[in-house]
Parts: sequence; C-alpha cells; structure tokens
Amino acid sequence: MSEKRTEISDLGEFGLIDHLNEKVKLQNDSTLKGIGDDAAVIDAGDHAKVVTTDLLLEGVHFDLAYAPLPHVGFKAVAVNVSDIAAMNAIPKQITVSIALSNRFSVEAVDALYSGIRAACEHYGVDLVGGDTTASRSGLVISITAIGEAQKGQITYRNGAKENDILCVTGDLGGALVGLQILEREKQVFLANPDMRPDLEKYTIVTGRQLKPDARMDIIHELRELGVVPTSMMDISDGLASEIFHICKSSNVGATIYEDKLPIDKQTFDTAVELNLDPITCVLNGGEDYELLFTIDQKDFEKLEKHPDIHFIGHISKAEEGKFLVTKSGTAVTIKAQGWKHF
Amino acid sequence: MSEKRTEISDLGEFGLIDHLNEKVKLQNDSTLKGIGDDAAVIDAGDHAKVVTTDLLLEGVHFDLAYAPLPHVGFKAVAVNVSDIAAMNAIPKQITVSIALSNRFSVEAVDALYSGIRAACEHYGVDLVGGDTTASRSGLVISITAIGEAQKGQITYRNGAKENDILCVTGDLGGALVGLQILEREKQVFLANPDMRPDLEKYTIVTGRQLKPDARMDIIHELRELGVVPTSMMDISDGLASEIFHICKSSNVGATIYEDKLPIDKQTFDTAVELNLDPITCVLNGGEDYELLFTIDQKDFEKLEKHPDIHFIGHISKAEEGKFLVTKSGTAVTIKAQGWKHF
Repeated sequence: MSEKRTEISDLGEFGLIDHLNEKVKLQNDSTLKGIGDDAAVIDAGDHAKVVTTDLLLEGVHFDLAYAPLPHVGFKAVAVNVSDIAAMNAIPKQITVSIALSNRFSVEAVDALYSGIRAACEHYGVDLVGGDTTASRSGLVISITAIGEAQKGQITYRNGAKENDILCVTGDLGGALVGLQILEREKQVFLANPDMRPDLEKYTIVTGRQLKPDARMDIIHELRELGVVPTSMMDISDGLASEIFHICKSSNVGATIYEDKLPIDKQTFDTAVELNLDPITCVLNGGEDYELLFTIDQKDFEKLEKHPDIHFIGHISKAEEGKFLVTKSGTAVTIKAQGWKHF
Repeated sequence: MSEKRTEISDLGEFGLIDHLNEKVKLQNDSTLKGIGDDAAVIDAGDHAKVVTTDLLLEGVHFDLAYAPLPHVGFKAVAVNVSDIAAMNAIPKQITVSIALSNRFSVEAVDALYSGIRAACEHYGVDLVGGDTTASRSGLVISITAIGEAQKGQITYRNGAKENDILCVTGDLGGALVGLQILEREKQVFLANPDMRPDLEKYTIVTGRQLKPDARMDIIHELRELGVVPTSMMDISDGLASEIFHICKSSNVGATIYEDKLPIDKQTFDTAVELNLDPITCVLNGGEDYELLFTIDQKDFEKLEKHPDIHFIGHISKAEEGKFLVTKSGTAVTIKAQGWKHF
C-alpha cells in the first residue's frame, strides 16, 4: 500500500463512487448501460434485462431496536424494486444474500424471510438464489434485483430536455420525519425502559420509514396510459439530490415550485413538532422511494388528472441553473444535500 | 418473535438454506431455474442468462492479515465466475457492492478495486453496477455475476446418469493446505513480530488460497471439443460435499478411486508436513474452485488426452451408494464434510 493516506470522507460517498468508476472499461456488446443510472441494462435479444443491487447493514441502514425483522426483509426487497421501477421496467427475479451472527435464531431468520417473501409476492418477483453465511458482527443483507423491459421503454436519467415537466409521485419527507420519531422514542426507551413509546399518532411517517412501497403501481399505469417518461429515477437520497443527478446526466437545468411540492399533513405536523423545516424535509429527506420523472409536454394531458402524480416544475437550459421558487415568489438556488453514510 | 429459540447451528448452513428454500414459490415463466444449482437461470429469448451471487466478509471469508487487498478483489470476482463456469456459461457482467469502515483509506479501496478490475479483464466481464456504503465493522464484499449460454448448453447438477464418467479439473486440496500455512505463519508473526514469515516454499498452495482462478479455460475447451457435460458444479466446499450434491440432485450413486484423485506435489508434501492426511485434504478441502462434472461415455475419447481433466470414477445407481475405492482396493463410504461457517 502506498504511504499516502486519503480519507474516504475527503471524497464523500459520491466522490468515492466517481473515483472508482472512472477506471472502469466496458468490453461486452451486451452491456447496454453500465454504472451511472438506477440499474444496469443488459441486452437480452428482443428485450433488455435491468439489474440493480443494494447492500444493507445493521446499524447503518436499519436498527433492529425499532425495525421489526419482517419489515427489514420487505424494505430490503422494496428498495431494489424501486430501482427497477426507476428504469420503467418490471422486476422479475431477486437474489438474497444474508450474513448472520449466532445472536440470530432460526425463528428470527424466519421472521426476516417472511418479509422478503411477502415483498416477492407483492411485487411478483421470484427469489432465485443467494448466499447464506456467518457474520462476526451484525446482520448484512445484499439483494440483487433483475427486471425486464422493451428496449424502447427503458428510461434513463439522461433524457430530460428543455420544457419537459418535472413530476413526482406520492408525497415526500415522510421517511426522514419517521426516522427522527423512531430515534427519539428509542432514546426515551433507553433512558427509561419502563416507558412505552407512544407511536400511535405517527403511524404514517414511521410506516414510510419502516416499510416503504416501491411505486410499481405508477409504472403499470404509465404503460396503460401510453406514457414513456423522458427521464426517471427513484427518490432514495432526497428530491434535491435526485434533481441534481437528472440535471447533470441530461445536461439541463430545472425550476421547481415550493407550493407544488407534495407533503403529507402528518409529515408536515410532525416536522414542525420536531423543529424541522417541512420543506427541507421534502427536499433533503431520503428513503421516500417515490419516483421523480420528466415528461414531454404532449403527455401532460394523459397524467393531468392522476391523483398521485404531482407536477412540481419544469426543465430549463443547463445555464439557467437549478431553482426553487418559494411561496413568496423568490427564486432560491437548490443545493444537493443527500445522504452521507461516511 | 416466538418464544421458541432454535439455534442456527442446530440446522447447519445447508440445513438453514433448505429450511428457507422450502417456502419459496416461483411465479414467473422467465425463471427457468431458481435456487438449488450453482446459479439461477433466466429466460432471455433466444438464449438464457445465468445469475449467481456471493457475500464475503472480512474475518469470515478472508483475513487481511495475510490476504493482500488486490488478491481479495480478484478472488471475490473469481469465485462468482467459477459458479457461472459451473453452469457451462460465459460470464459477461458483474455488480460489486462494498461496505467499508473508516479504517480504510481511498488508497486501500483502490488496491481492492485494482484486483477487481484485473479479474474483470482476465474473465472478460464488465463491472456494471453496485453499491458503496459505510460499515461499522470489517470489509464486506457482495458480488453478483451474470453470464449467458444457449439454453441447450446449460449444465445442471441433476443430469448425471448411470455409467457417466466423473471428471475433475486441475488438482485439489491446495487451497485448504495453503490456508493452514497462512494461519500458521500468522500465529508465528503475532507471537513474534520480528519474525518474517517464510512462505517461499509454499507459493503454490498459498496461491491456491489467495488467488484462485476460475476454470473458464475448461469451459471454452469443452465448447471447442463439442462436449456438453451431463452435470457440473464447481468445487467450493470440497470434492466429497460436491459429489453428494450431484448424487442427490441427479438421484444417482458414485464410485471414485483414490489413485485417480489429482493432488499437486507441494500440496501433498505440505499436508504431510502439517500432519494432515493428503486424501482428506483432497476430499474435504474447500475453495479449490476446480470443476467437477460428468460426461457420457461417448465423449470420453474427446477428453481422454486433456492434460488437466482427470477421470476419477463413475456414476452408479442411487441404491449402490457413494464410495471411495482406496489404493489397497477397499471400498469406503464417502462422507460429505464440507465447510461450516456457523
């Protein structure tokens, strides 16, 4: 090893990924898209396979103090399905690898797998393989999902063009607010184990954190309506961060409007209770697993009445930058915060 | 969680895998083969994709005290390629996920990836995706490999039939013996850090442990010779264990001959030095990543002169059992020991 030591935190997660990917060379014709989108795309003759993978570690991505094992299993599948959805593809197979310490009983593993199987049934995917091994520390879950789509239907991050409409599904910020509530109640419980956490008034936001649902319903509806988004990705790191990704990949700018951003009432009220700015939660809250996409204006009519698709802004020229127009009419530059695990 | 607690060690690794797989149901036509072989098989129109995944943890699967990071990266790819080879398929893409603690520098990650990239080049595979995250403990590597083959060329574990010839490639037991040497020298070093480990006379066996090579050369040669094995798997858990898998999947028995088992001279000599029985190392040593396969007798002539394929026995009826015929002519029942991480 060389004598120089550069800390990973100096580069950050995205910087490290960029650094590693710079040196990657592709050599097979069947690789239609490598690193750089929600999933890779592989030629399969008359169609294409899309492939994505996520690595989840106890203590980093989930906390078994408040996340029930069946929910952990369900979410581990859902986050991968969400990446398949973001390519406008249909998930078909997953592999599941787990590493377990001897602290886990067979009953605990069964609980985890009950959630994995429930997600497989919910999304119509087959569990086709994996690896099971021992861990010296916490639970590790690695899932790879494989989906399929016609080649012309696959949506990348790089297809957004000037005047396209920016759309998001569902509502945002809930998963972050839910996480704050779960962490608060955990601290209360640790300080006084006789206290029973009162989570009843927070079921929507804690549900968004513990058991997110990938928006396959939207993908199927887009097909029925004959709409192929010009670009798409899922919102796992936060809306602002994902807008940056789409703008960078597509070489465009974007303007979004504060009064168009979808936020659930419980998310809003709980954010205020926690002294968090609700709009910051919407912009920078991760793990919502909603979809962010752009459509050509000609498709607006087809989606206009959809109850769960929100039109939050539009795509502009790259040199026009990335702006949030506040309720008072001020244009504020958007900053990508995103999640930083390192 | 239920009150009953069953320890994972009560079931063992294979028992746990069987337990979890019992409840898996397949629902997609494109899933040609799910759990139960070296890789899953997925319909891709005119051909098939094969998919395999491995999860490797520091302290369980590799020890950075003696495994250089580039070798760890190379091996992590090779073990997945070996599973693709075992399906008689050609690897094309991999995804690589890693979890890192802040003990790792960017330079260390570069060293790991230099091995991953070297393996990609060696096997002709494209690195198409992955995930990078923080770890609270050691290094975690999860790799998924995707290969392709014509549907008629894919070899499963369940195709062996009576009178087929059992073949193995290369030589066996080296990786286990190499591991013992590396562990011994590590203990010597820990006891006295001024001692420089003397590994020069063990380069073959330590090489087998630290940087195994998946036998893609054999897969390409079998194609050139027009031979499709009737069954195949790679030897990752030990020859005896893999013979059990093929016999169980194919519902057959097998007889192998001690004097036909391939062992390298350095493996033999080092085993004796370590007071290990060389034949036990051949039968139960894991991680050799050679191929075990069966061929129809009509194909024997085509492979007869191959310098690196060894004909170690034949397939019999299931009720005849599984036997090793020793050099003295005694038939001994084979026991599957395999690796147990739990």
